[in-house]
Amino acid sequence: MKNKKETIAAIIIVGNEILSGRTQDTNTSTLSTWLNSLGVKVLEVRVIPDIEGVIVNTVNELRVKFDYVFTTGGIGPTHDDITASSISKALNLVYGPHDKAMSILEKYYKPGEFTEGRQKMAWMPTTANLILNPTSGAPGFNVENIFCLPGVPSILKSMLGGISHKITGGEPIISHTINLRTVESEISKSLSNVQDLNKDVEIGSYPFFKAGKLGVAIVLRSSDQSKIDKCNLEILKFVKEKKIQIIERD
Amino acid sequence: MKNKKETIAAIIIVGNEILSGRTQDTNTSTLSTWLNSLGVKVLEVRVIPDIEGVIVNTVNELRVKFDYVFTTGGIGPTHDDITASSISKALNLVYGPHDKAMSILEKYYKPGEFTEGRQKMAWMPTTANLILNPTSGAPGFNVENIFCLPGVPSILKSMLGGISHKITGGEPIISHTINLRTVESEISKSLSNVQDLNKDVEIGSYPFFKAGKLGVAIVLRSSDQSKIDKCNLEILKFVKEKKIQIIERD
Repeated sequence: MKNKKETIAAIIIVGNEILSGRTQDTNTSTLSTWLNSLGVKVLEVRVIPDIEGVIVNTVNELRVKFDYVFTTGGIGPTHDDITASSISKALNLVYGPHDKAMSILEKYYKPGEFTEGRQKMAWMPTTANLILNPTSGAPGFNVENIFCLPGVPSILKSMLGGISHKITGGEPIISHTINLRTVESEISKSLSNVQDLNKDVEIGSYPFFKAGKLGVAIVLRSSDQSKIDKCNLEILKFVKEKKIQIIERD
Repeated sequence: MKNKKETIAAIIIVGNEILSGRTQDTNTSTLSTWLNSLGVKVLEVRVIPDIEGVIVNTVNELRVKFDYVFTTGGIGPTHDDITASSISKALNLVYGPHDKAMSILEKYYKPGEFTEGRQKMAWMPTTANLILNPTSGAPGFNVENIFCLPGVPSILKSMLGGISHKITGGEPIISHTINLRTVESEISKSLSNVQDLNKDVEIGSYPFFKAGKLGVAIVLRSSDQSKIDKCNLEILKFVKEKKIQIIERD
């Protein structure tokens, strides 16, 4: 029996490289899609700099507001990797070499190559649960409702499978998209009427340009397929009346 | 004479489509790069849902903490576009049809096509300054230190040129990147020493995989070219000593 209450999460992206515009964040999209499939709704994302005080305050604010908090970035071996120490501070946990992480990394490196710099990757709250890293050895970690993952997208992706069982979501969120050859202002009133009649379905309207043509994607989201179906029929009704072309549906 | 004090900004991305993972945000990177060139440092990004109370609270929290706040998304004609009304509420301003915006849109549409749905795009704080939209007519707006832009990336980009003169930044932030064929743990100690000797330069270290090969990008950021140059020399010194290959510099 699934939990009917909505389960909500926040994502904290730690990284000056995202704030400076140098790097395009893709971890938000990866995490949100994965969490949706587990029945967890992401309701806030914050991108913050590598500054201890900011990390501490952000973690402490969000961990009480959300069921789960995910952080990405700042758990590598360099001086600007301060997520693990900051989270230890936020939760008043001892920051030090984690026994199991040390032993994983000792095995990962050739003898003599497990240098001081590399040992930093095993420093975290000493009582943390590890999140194993099949790509590059250095683990992430979980303390309370906080899951700390690396910033490199391919490594982050490879680690999600190992924590899915730790996430208890509500009913998975189903989404249905209708792409129309129209502009938003043509359908805004009709769509608003449908939203009023279907308060439980989140109806989003997103204009797009594709291959030089304008269109609008209508996205219906709910955990209840029958509610999406009802809403869908009402939309198709006004689309037909207005003689709007349906480009595709999924 | 440029203002020597750091000028800081926050970005609020309003949109369920980003939180659901459906759409990849690119506006953060566009805005940050543009703001950097004007000497403004982005220190926080928040992605929040289309919920009035959340928009009101987020705007009110960030507008006092930052010199500038930029919002993207939620200013179109559909029911889920509630940024303009929420910002009016946050600032206790009258939300209604904006005279100049109405007249722009009246001219933009053919006679008889400026429907009620389209008129919504001219509703905003009635005292707002408009941000002209060369792409699709509907303007953004500016009230106090808040700039409200649309979510569609190509439209947003086309509107930035029109507001650059309204942004008073500090000295432009210069960045220099050194891409090395190494792994972070190989250089972490040396890099940390360089950071300790150059507190005024922000040194970031970012591992990457490109064409199947590992590398690390070291990014130096400061508004002072001579400080970047000094830091750069110290990094090149240890890179040479460690016989690390330099892939490229820019």
